[in-house]
Amino acid sequence: MYYFDSDYMVGAHPEVMEKLIETNLLHTVGYQRDQFCDEARKIILEACGLNDGKVLFFVGGTQTNATVIDGLLHRHEGVLAADSAHINVHEAGAIEASGHKVLTLPAVNGKIDAKQIEDYVETFYRDDSYSHMVAPGMVYISFPTELGTLYSRDELTAIADACHQHNIPLYVDGARLAYGLQAPGNDISLKDLAAIADYFYIGGTKCGALMGEALVSRHADAVPYLYTLIKQHGSMLAKGRLLGVQFIALFSNDLYNRIGRHAIEMAMRLKEGMKAKNVELMIDLPTNQQFFVLPNETIARLRKIASFEYWGAPGPDKSAVRFVTDFSTTPEAIDAVVDAV
Amino acid sequence: MYYFDSDYMVGAHPEVMEKLIETNLLHTVGYQRDQFCDEARKIILEACGLNDGKVLFFVGGTQTNATVIDGLLHRHEGVLAADSAHINVHEAGAIEASGHKVLTLPAVNGKIDAKQIEDYVETFYRDDSYSHMVAPGMVYISFPTELGTLYSRDELTAIADACHQHNIPLYVDGARLAYGLQAPGNDISLKDLAAIADYFYIGGTKCGALMGEALVSRHADAVPYLYTLIKQHGSMLAKGRLLGVQFIALFSNDLYNRIGRHAIEMAMRLKEGMKAKNVELMIDLPTNQQFFVLPNETIARLRKIASFEYWGAPGPDKSAVRFVTDFSTTPEAIDAVVDAV
Amino acid sequence: MYYFDSDYMVGAHPEVMEKLIETNLLHTVGYQRDQFCDEARKIILEACGLNDGKVLFFVGGTQTNATVIDGLLHRHEGVLAADSAHINVHEAGAIEASGHKVLTLPAVNGKIDAKQIEDYVETFYRDDSYSHMVAPGMVYISFPTELGTLYSRDELTAIADACHQHNIPLYVDGARLAYGLQAPGNDISLKDLAAIADYFYIGGTKCGALMGEALVSRHADAVPYLYTLIKQHGSMLAKGRLLGVQFIALFSNDLYNRIGRHAIEMAMRLKEGMKAKNVELMIDLPTNQQFFVLPNETIARLRKIASFEYWGAPGPDKSAVRFVTDFSTTPEAIDAVVDAV
Amino acid sequence: MYYFDSDYMVGAHPEVMEKLIETNLLHTVGYQRDQFCDEARKIILEACGLNDGKVLFFVGGTQTNATVIDGLLHRHEGVLAADSAHINVHEAGAIEASGHKVLTLPAVNGKIDAKQIEDYVETFYRDDSYSHMVAPGMVYISFPTELGTLYSRDELTAIADACHQHNIPLYVDGARLAYGLQAPGNDISLKDLAAIADYFYIGGTKCGALMGEALVSRHADAVPYLYTLIKQHGSMLAKGRLLGVQFIALFSNDLYNRIGRHAIEMAMRLKEGMKAKNVELMIDLPTNQQFFVLPNETIARLRKIASFEYWGAPGPDKSAVRFVTDFSTTPEAIDAVVDAV
Repeated sequence: MYYFDSDYMVGAHPEVMEKLIETNLLHTVGYQRDQFCDEARKIILEACGLNDGKVLFFVGGTQTNATVIDGLLHRHEGVLAADSAHINVHEAGAIEASGHKVLTLPAVNGKIDAKQIEDYVETFYRDDSYSHMVAPGMVYISFPTELGTLYSRDELTAIADACHQHNIPLYVDGARLAYGLQAPGNDISLKDLAAIADYFYIGGTKCGALMGEALVSRHADAVPYLYTLIKQHGSMLAKGRLLGVQFIALFSNDLYNRIGRHAIEMAMRLKEGMKAKNVELMIDLPTNQQFFVLPNETIARLRKIASFEYWGAPGPDKSAVRFVTDFSTTPEAIDAVVDAV
Repeated sequence: MYYFDSDYMVGAHPEVMEKLIETNLLHTVGYQRDQFCDEARKIILEACGLNDGKVLFFVGGTQTNATVIDGLLHRHEGVLAADSAHINVHEAGAIEASGHKVLTLPAVNGKIDAKQIEDYVETFYRDDSYSHMVAPGMVYISFPTELGTLYSRDELTAIADACHQHNIPLYVDGARLAYGLQAPGNDISLKDLAAIADYFYIGGTKCGALMGEALVSRHADAVPYLYTLIKQHGSMLAKGRLLGVQFIALFSNDLYNRIGRHAIEMAMRLKEGMKAKNVELMIDLPTNQQFFVLPNETIARLRKIASFEYWGAPGPDKSAVRFVTDFSTTPEAIDAVVDAV
Repeated sequence: MYYFDSDYMVGAHPEVMEKLIETNLLHTVGYQRDQFCDEARKIILEACGLNDGKVLFFVGGTQTNATVIDGLLHRHEGVLAADSAHINVHEAGAIEASGHKVLTLPAVNGKIDAKQIEDYVETFYRDDSYSHMVAPGMVYISFPTELGTLYSRDELTAIADACHQHNIPLYVDGARLAYGLQAPGNDISLKDLAAIADYFYIGGTKCGALMGEALVSRHADAVPYLYTLIKQHGSMLAKGRLLGVQFIALFSNDLYNRIGRHAIEMAMRLKEGMKAKNVELMIDLPTNQQFFVLPNETIARLRKIASFEYWGAPGPDKSAVRFVTDFSTTPEAIDAVVDAV
Repeated sequence: MYYFDSDYMVGAHPEVMEKLIETNLLHTVGYQRDQFCDEARKIILEACGLNDGKVLFFVGGTQTNATVIDGLLHRHEGVLAADSAHINVHEAGAIEASGHKVLTLPAVNGKIDAKQIEDYVETFYRDDSYSHMVAPGMVYISFPTELGTLYSRDELTAIADACHQHNIPLYVDGARLAYGLQAPGNDISLKDLAAIADYFYIGGTKCGALMGEALVSRHADAVPYLYTLIKQHGSMLAKGRLLGVQFIALFSNDLYNRIGRHAIEMAMRLKEGMKAKNVELMIDLPTNQQFFVLPNETIARLRKIASFEYWGAPGPDKSAVRFVTDFSTTPEAIDAVVDAV
């Protein structure tokens, strides 16, 4: 059986696992104060082209989003996001549970743009009753988006400019960052992202780690109590070293890029194979999620050799399905699926 | 250097690590829906002597406490706890951050008793203005307590009776449960705990796992949306299998008990060694935390070979210090410390 | 100058004021436990055709909404509402501040319908990942709506049926209820509303009181701790009698209906007068809010004699404006405005 | 029957009522933006000896406390207060419901002192694990306290100094401020309070108004979004003028002081009368609450002519009772009670 359900279906990349094994019985202090977290911080900042800045570790994406948003917003503020955003749909109300409203903008293919942000903020403050409404206090986007699309550097810069013009920070959710960075046509590097976004996180869980995300900000002194909020939100691992150790592995020997590159190669091999068989793409995507529209009988045949997610029914006899690749996807698996269509 | 700072200073017990390595590249679904979590649930319920019940996994203790308390309380209720309780002091306000008050009872050696609970609840409802006050909605205790002391089976049963008489659930924090169960003089088994407490968690993080805690309840259908609250509190690992796999290891081949037993043996060897050298005990404890009062110059000498925590100054020339043992503590380490006094 | 800005621009209706003056120096207990609140409860239940039920008083509408929604929802649930709903736009995030998400449905003229609710709930539970999402836990609508439109009895019944089929309560915000009940074409009586909605509130602030709203539910025993939540949300007046006294006045001598009827007569006189002058209606409305589209120069002329709100610019030379009537609006004021067009 | 249960048992002082009647049918804009609120702000600042500053109105005390504390604290901070404080006991968890912990200090006769604050803050930051704990972010005291005691100017100044030395604001709950200011032996004026406390509120509800409190701060620009938080906490009256109008009355013709003075005269007449009859004082108090210990048979006799609160049983045959005076208390009522002992 071949598995394409998502990118969190196996454990860690072997090189990450190796580093965990190697350091397993060393003694360190807890709560991200250890030498591994320190080293990880150093090499992450370096990879981001930042001399100075803040790196904090979280166990998972929802925690990271909820904690950072809670830390950046005042009580009367909400977070602007695409209506399709993960924080608006698939985080069980974690943002609202800490008291904040998600202010939604209609997304096109998972993306919002600078003009929507400008319009929202300007319309808001032109409204005489704005002090009775939730103020836009920050912008949340993800890279890649929920649908696997990407922002170009120009688009991202325009969004950041719109934010800064109105004095609100831009936060980028990078749960699948490795795949975005290595996608064909992508023109944003990790250093670009670190220079443009006020806060962003480098996804570990979906990009080869057992679990863990690394929040990065070029503002070294921003929100000094964010560390305490991590504890308050229940995300401060006693054995915080586990996060440091894994990020050292991910950022050594070009591993994070290799993981991204491999998954993208597999995704493109799948897309090209499907296109060669005249399979309809639900949307043409450059990242590690690929959506196809297939006759239901073809799908039934595929399910005998592969596991993947159902993504709605565009017609009576056909369905959309999602295939996701990761570091563990093999060319054989791809070819077997394509052959079976 | 020997390390006694706490019980979360190394990675996982080798048998836990082995199981993680062995299963690392197997594919499973996410979010605790996988076969490993299912198996772990089964063997945990079995170990607890429960035919039926609920087992849910969490990444860490603060999350477990905050999520369970949030799930069990109505909005107008608070949680009764010792004033020295972890939730009242060392969780950065996680309980209050989700809207609930910790209603404190004065603790003696980290413990509260049934009478305090009864008195609190009865006094509360006798007060004409009780509807202007936070109602006691559940009781939180820990086993072992924050100070390393233990409840006897009679004490625990009396507390549970006081709770049930007033129709409120009893929740037991078992962050260091392995050590409590194996402590000399302890008369509570895992099965007893499962029969007495409405909810309790089996600590993994401090008892040999990389991270993770297992919440157990004999009420199989209680709080059906607790699963969603785990996601809302940011504690739902995408690779939920990591928790299942580790708990399978901890509850196979008697490992959880062996871990507890070894740490207790080392703690007792340390206590007896110290007593033989006429060292003053801050308090005589049966679990894996040991507190000694030593002359400052002795402490300075010990620091050259061992790392441990400072715990206050009972006098001008002496200090209290804490030593904690775990699965990785060796007899050599203990003897070296005792010899150095 | 004539004032049409809103329906909260004067103090209380003289008969309400009279009752406050008359009872001002009588002694009563506090916190809604007094004889006036008791009497008000009795006559409100009677007016609602309920033998039994719950009546609680609140100081204002936002409080009522936030407290009731907080009381009815579990922590993992949100409230379904029109995207234009007051709770979604003009309550400064009060719902989210107590931890709940507003789940929006696209409104047409301020209204949602039964089918939207059914579709939302059914789609929700068909989604495999629904336990990662905020569950629809209740429905909020307002009568009249934010735009001044009304639900028919059939529409309201269908909405209630959709709710009850899915086991979620229906809550109706009646901030301007007096005007809805007296609107031409309305076929819903107070008794109908009390029989159909699980919870609703009778607006006082915008309908002739100094301030205050009366929550009514036919479920006498529902949410027994709602009283305490009123205190927790800061809405429990020490001199709770003020609310009881005013609602006695509003529900004596048919006053609530007379207030509604007068404001509606004035609103219809205004609408007819404007139509006779060929003024464009932004939307044809049966309640006490009337929206007109007028040339900017006409508006400038009107502003010399009347005060009213600007409501957007449908074109370069014309604007929409809002006129609101209440118990204090006079035929002279209406005629003066119409004459000045 | 004479009523001494509390100071919120009648409506408004006649001069307050007069002003409400007089302005009842004037038109104003809503939400504290009207001319009456503006005028009230001006005369309150003047009475406080402030050239500049912030005045905001609230409907009740719990709201004021919850909103101000929510506005002043960061998410990781709590509020230091006496364990007997209103916010810790009698506000139904309103502070925790908005996410903040009340950090309690043991009170003596309802009071805390500067040293306790200093010790708490200093001990807190000396603790290595302080970032796992709730930081002290502000201090709450009340004047008079929950028990009717008063701080001297020296004590209050020392508390403020302790706060400012540690860079945290001092907030004073003045629910019964009128009585504190007029108490025999009190050496704090309204101007003193305004100069010493960063934030305080002038109680209306318990001091002659129908309802309403006025928050005052000498920091004109502090927490600019506090206005929006008032809305979010559900405390923004649509007819905000009601608060402005009442505070104009309270601060015209020396009314606030006259109300305080009268209640104090009555309270002292009662205390002296009781002492002359050898009645035991539970505590000797200078404000409008008086606590007496009386034989149960005397209490039974008194209940035939007067209504008052039971305050616990210091012995088998005697009980403590509370008498509270206000603007409506008459010398005849006092004398009748004293005569009946």
